[in-house]
This record gives sequence, structure tokens and C-alpha cells, in this order.
Amino acid sequence: MECFDTHIHSEGKGIHELRAMVKRGVKRAVSCAFYPLAPSAPETVIDMFRKLMSFEVKRANKAGMKLYPAIGVHPRCIPPEYRKVLSFMERCSPTAFGEIGLESAGSLEIEVLTAQLELAKKMDVPCIIHTPRKNKEEITIKILEILEKVGFPEELAVVDHANGRVVSDITDAGYWAGLTVQPGKLSKNEVKEIVETYGFERFLLNSDTGFSDEELFAVSDTVDYLSSHFGKEVEKLAYRNAEKFLRV
Amino acid sequence: MECFDTHIHSEGKGIHELRAMVKRGVKRAVSCAFYPLAPSAPETVIDMFRKLMSFEVKRANKAGMKLYPAIGVHPRCIPPEYRKVLSFMERCSPTAFGEIGLESAGSLEIEVLTAQLELAKKMDVPCIIHTPRKNKEEITIKILEILEKVGFPEELAVVDHANGRVVSDITDAGYWAGLTVQPGKLSKNEVKEIVETYGFERFLLNSDTGFSDEELFAVSDTVDYLSSHFGKEVEKLAYRNAEKFLRV
Repeated sequence: MECFDTHIHSEGKGIHELRAMVKRGVKRAVSCAFYPLAPSAPETVIDMFRKLMSFEVKRANKAGMKLYPAIGVHPRCIPPEYRKVLSFMERCSPTAFGEIGLESAGSLEIEVLTAQLELAKKMDVPCIIHTPRKNKEEITIKILEILEKVGFPEELAVVDHANGRVVSDITDAGYWAGLTVQPGKLSKNEVKEIVETYGFERFLLNSDTGFSDEELFAVSDTVDYLSSHFGKEVEKLAYRNAEKFLRV
Repeated sequence: MECFDTHIHSEGKGIHELRAMVKRGVKRAVSCAFYPLAPSAPETVIDMFRKLMSFEVKRANKAGMKLYPAIGVHPRCIPPEYRKVLSFMERCSPTAFGEIGLESAGSLEIEVLTAQLELAKKMDVPCIIHTPRKNKEEITIKILEILEKVGFPEELAVVDHANGRVVSDITDAGYWAGLTVQPGKLSKNEVKEIVETYGFERFLLNSDTGFSDEELFAVSDTVDYLSSHFGKEVEKLAYRNAEKFLRV
């Protein structure tokens, strides 16, 4: 089945890898902004966005993949003078902001996330919101509080890397929950259990594949696995929900 | 045979691709600095160097590849206030500067190349010097003039992406000539013709594989091909000359 991987980092992938993903059905993907070390200036992040929106889109296209760049300040790579980055984001028309979110939920992280959510609300842009491995439950709740405080439109937020313990908090609050299939995150079977319990309507599927050993085919493999159990309804997880969330 | 690819751009390669290269014998490589669009500030380039020297080295190591980062301002991505980048370079202890060189040989390119060569001479650092596809002969001569003007130590310069028409200019002047095997650059057979004519002593072999469809196995394939004709002497091209040039 054709798939839409709603969260990858194309900058970490070679063209042969992107082509292999396409061959396995991943025809579309969102490439999220992330810099793998602490940037020394806002321009490093701005140039990374420019690279994502031009060079990466063309490179993926060459591999047969339609790439939607998401731009945003990740909590693990906040540059000095981050407001300059936000001014740049305001001048763009991105498919989405991402990945934004919280890692350790310190005061600067909260300030940067809140500022980006306020900007996204003003610009009517969908947001891909990272939750960390550590203290996932506590920090997911914190993110939900921030979303509520900002009055953020429910349909424009996916709270990503959700697990079985937080999905109902996210979907009960009206947001999309992102299911990331990777060793250390969710297994195919955990995704199956989640959709058996909560249905297919409020979930987006992704691999978060990027700079390291993350599986390339996590989304297509999961979709194949679920298809054998649920049939055509899996289309929602494969691409229909992504189209709805991203409005593409 | 074990190989040393003297010029790749690891930032364009996924970890599965790096691992595939290692499996085919490419155990060591130089990863050259390059930014695929015009940087808006010197910090973008400095952070790219930091990424190469830390994150990329670790990532390649995970794939089983020993990576030697080369840092330098490529003529196609000169940032504003480029002297800030040179000050950063002066505070590092890189294996090599690269890739530096000329693309269209405008006055700013010449100024930046000259400044980097002067710094490398002062710091005693080997330099990987790019020559363009267009006007290769004319611009290679220009580079040789600049090297001579700077009084650059012959053993510290490789003039890269050489072809059959310029190799003797380069080696006669005492420098290393870089042989890049890729569609549009050299074929395995052209490399064979070059070493048949000029011997193995003054050449470094590389793939220049990076962000696009360049062949991953250009160096190992070429070494295999040459081995069947020349035997053990091919070790010079496979890794011995690289070790000598880079002093590793």
C-alpha cells in the first residue's frame, strides 16, 4: 500500500536509502528540522530550513519521493537569539512546523515551544510536537497544558512519539497522536493494540528515520502488517489521516 | 582490498550506505566540508565543521568507517565574513583542509583560496583542492599558479578531480593529483590509462560520493579492477598514498 511517513529526517538519509523507501511504498514524507548539535547562531538553523525547503525537496524528488519540509526549533537545538529564527519562519509558507516540542521541559524550552505554537496559531500551520523518551508521561501532560493555554486548534497539533500510556490523554484532548515505529519506541504489535483499542481516526504513523540506524521501512512494514488484520481501514493510518492533518 | 576513499561527503550519506561502503572494503575516508547552498552567515559553515568533526566522525564509526574530517570553505559556498571561518579553522587541528579550490575563478574565490592556502602552509595542514567540471584545464593552471605564488609545500597539496589532460601539469609541478571515479568524471578505464602512463606514485583515489547519485563503491570497484591488471602495486592507490599524504 502507498504510505505517507509523517516524520523523517531526510538530511540523515542518502539518496539510495530514500529510493529504497519509495520502492517499498513510502511515496510521501514530512522531513522535520533538526540540527544534531547545539547551533552557535540562529543563521545555522535558518540555513538548515532553507536547505530543507529547497535542496532536500529536490533531492527526495530525484529519488521519487514527494517531500514536505517542516521547519521549527527542536528543543534539543535551540540557538542563541532564537527569535530571529521565528521571524524567518513567519516569512515562510511551510507545510508544517516541526519538530518542535519539549525534551527536558526547562523554562527556555517552554518559552520556545509556546512562541512557536502562538506563531503557528496565527499563521494557521499544523505542528509536529516532539515528546521525549525520558519522563514521557509527565512531559506529554505538560505539552497538553501548553497547547490548552495557547488555545491551540486541536486539528493542527500532532503530539508525536506517543505510547500506549499517553495516547488517550492526547486524543481525549482532541489532538492527533503520532505513532513512531522504531526499536525503543513502538513495535508494530503495539500499534496494532493501540488501533484495536482506539480506532484509526486520530493517529498519524511515522518512522522518525534519520541520521542513525532507525529502520527505513517502519511505516510500510507496519501498514502491511496491519492490512493483514484490518484491511482497507488501514488506509487512514497509511496516508489518509496525514493528508487531512497536513491539508495536502 | 582495503581502501581509503580520499574524498567523500559523508553528510549526504545515510548510515546504511556508509555500512555498505565498509562492507566493500572502504574502511577509511576523508569527509570534505561542503554546504549545498549559499550560507547566509559564517556560523553556518563553522557549525557544519563542528558537525563533521564530532557527529559525523561518530556516525561513520558506528558504521565501521574511520572518518577523517576535512574542513574548509568550498568556492561554491563562501559565506559573508569568511575570515571568521578561517579564524575558527586556525583553532582546529584538522586532518586536512578541504574541499577548497576554485569553481569559476572569480576574484573572491581566488582571495578565499589564497587565504586558506596561506593558513594551511602556516599550520602545516594537507589541502584537498577542488577543480571544476567547466574550464578544468584553464582553472587547474590557475590553481597551480596560486600554489606557486603562495610557495605552498608540494607534498601538502592534492589537486583533485584531475583528468588525463591535466594530470601531468599537476604531477610535474610536484603536487598530488586526485582521481575521482564517477560518471561524468573518470571511468575505471581512464584511471588505468593514467597509471599505465604515469605510474602509481603521485595519485590519490576517490569517489566524491555525497548528496546525490554518485556511486558508493567507485573506489573499491576501481581498486579491484586495477588489481587484476597490476597486482600489489595497486595498494599505493588503494590506501598507501592516502596515508602518506594525510600522514595517518
